[in-house]
Amino acid sequence: MQRRLGAWMSEQRCRIGVVAPASRMSPEVAERVPTLAKSLYPDRTPEIIFHPQCFASHGHFAGDDETRGQAFLDIANDETYDAVWFARGGYGSCRVVEAVMSSLTEPSRRKTYVGYSDAGVLLAALYRAGFETVAHGPVAQDILRDGGEEAVGRALAWMVDLSPEALESTAGRGKMTAAFNMTVLSQLLGTPLQPDLGGHVLMLEEVGEAMYRIDRSLFHITSNAEIRRVSGMMLGRCSNITPNEPDFGMNEEEIARYWCQRSGIPWLGRADIGHDISNKIVPFGTSREPCRSYPQK
Amino acid sequence: MQRRLGAWMSEQRCRIGVVAPASRMSPEVAERVPTLAKSLYPDRTPEIIFHPQCFASHGHFAGDDETRGQAFLDIANDETYDAVWFARGGYGSCRVVEAVMSSLTEPSRRKTYVGYSDAGVLLAALYRAGFETVAHGPVAQDILRDGGEEAVGRALAWMVDLSPEALESTAGRGKMTAAFNMTVLSQLLGTPLQPDLGGHVLMLEEVGEAMYRIDRSLFHITSNAEIRRVSGMMLGRCSNITPNEPDFGMNEEEIARYWCQRSGIPWLGRADIGHDISNKIVPFGTSREPCRSYPQK
Repeated sequence: MQRRLGAWMSEQRCRIGVVAPASRMSPEVAERVPTLAKSLYPDRTPEIIFHPQCFASHGHFAGDDETRGQAFLDIANDETYDAVWFARGGYGSCRVVEAVMSSLTEPSRRKTYVGYSDAGVLLAALYRAGFETVAHGPVAQDILRDGGEEAVGRALAWMVDLSPEALESTAGRGKMTAAFNMTVLSQLLGTPLQPDLGGHVLMLEEVGEAMYRIDRSLFHITSNAEIRRVSGMMLGRCSNITPNEPDFGMNEEEIARYWCQRSGIPWLGRADIGHDISNKIVPFGTSREPCRSYPQK
Repeated sequence: MQRRLGAWMSEQRCRIGVVAPASRMSPEVAERVPTLAKSLYPDRTPEIIFHPQCFASHGHFAGDDETRGQAFLDIANDETYDAVWFARGGYGSCRVVEAVMSSLTEPSRRKTYVGYSDAGVLLAALYRAGFETVAHGPVAQDILRDGGEEAVGRALAWMVDLSPEALESTAGRGKMTAAFNMTVLSQLLGTPLQPDLGGHVLMLEEVGEAMYRIDRSLFHITSNAEIRRVSGMMLGRCSNITPNEPDFGMNEEEIARYWCQRSGIPWLGRADIGHDISNKIVPFGTSREPCRSYPQK
């Protein structure tokens, strides 16, 4: 990836723009994240700008569709930013993705994008459009989790240094990967947003769904002919599983193994991702080597 | 549709086989439905046979996958039955549909199929395979709803007489139609089970989902290029909508109109279907004229 020349030549600070294409971010996040960034990078504190749209409110969303889409473009198309960081997931990216993708300009290609869950809709679209540094990883609002500094520190380590330590342990080293929330990927199948994951290791996680819904999502995903071209599937954590009435009779790993076996997709075991503070970075495609000009310790 | 010659020539009783490819049916249903049938058709009471599999139990399901699939085939491939009636929805048809479809024989084509919700998976597959009398309509277990005799009587009227009174008021008269639970249709998109709905009026209903999920399902459905070939969309009832935090800001009709407008699918108003006793019959494809040999009143 080529970083913008301006930042590379003239300054040492990484400039990160935070946007919320789905649900509204808690204002507290904008106080705690920069404090953490300063403590982690005292000499080269990344500059983290929260787009005012992060605090907007429109029904379910952080502002109406036009506001959210424009905010994403404000950051993505601005040459002075190095990274677009998702404030949080929730729901809403699918409403703005078409408008966003049709208005991205050249500077948007020279940026790191980090998010997960609902953000997977935009990550998928960016990756499909050939963007080279798109990654599944923690969002800003993860700082509100118990021990959330760990998650946010990992996202910063990726955005600031593309630090290999931030990666899911099986990712990187030239391997093609992608990671999604199951439901989010399911809702992209059969649409123009479905990314080409042929040859990729596909990692899937879930949160807040009943076991029968996990089963149904994996039926859907593994029944798609394009998805069957992945090199294998790994299961991330499935957290806050809601009650299944009656008991489903299989756990999430048994379900994932079942659908892998039925579909002929190689089962590759567990992935270190999920809606939690241990959620690791998974690049879309092959991971990039660190290329920042920052002084290395 | 050609009815089986045996029944047509030798007897007047419609023979209906009930199977449960998803969740387990309540035993009470097998007592109440035949009683209702006798009261509605005293002179030509349809014979309603509940396959023992309806009462089986295996974790979430009415028996394991093999048991459920085989039960469906037992009825569908048996020349002596006129109709295959779904005991209920729930979840599980997607696990047996492949095995079922690969083992159906000629007698299965000369039957009426009636169900909805999770049964939509099998209805879609049957319709895609060219089956001519497949319909969205009440299941046997609907008799347990308050006033459920109304729903079950409607399903019987369709299976016994293909009665036009059972139809959704805008269906029939040669119009091509199809009806689905939104989530169920969504989970078929991009799979080999997705039916060709080009030129059809597509009716969609939902139950037990939050408003943001209804929005997401309609994003998914209306983003599919094949679905965009429908002649229009109608919205059935969305019942037991779970809380949306914060309030979504739009109701289900506003949401449906929004996605129709964005996708260019004509909005055709409300459909008289849903998870309730007023749930009407919607044929897949064009509806058939009554063709039974029963004495008409």
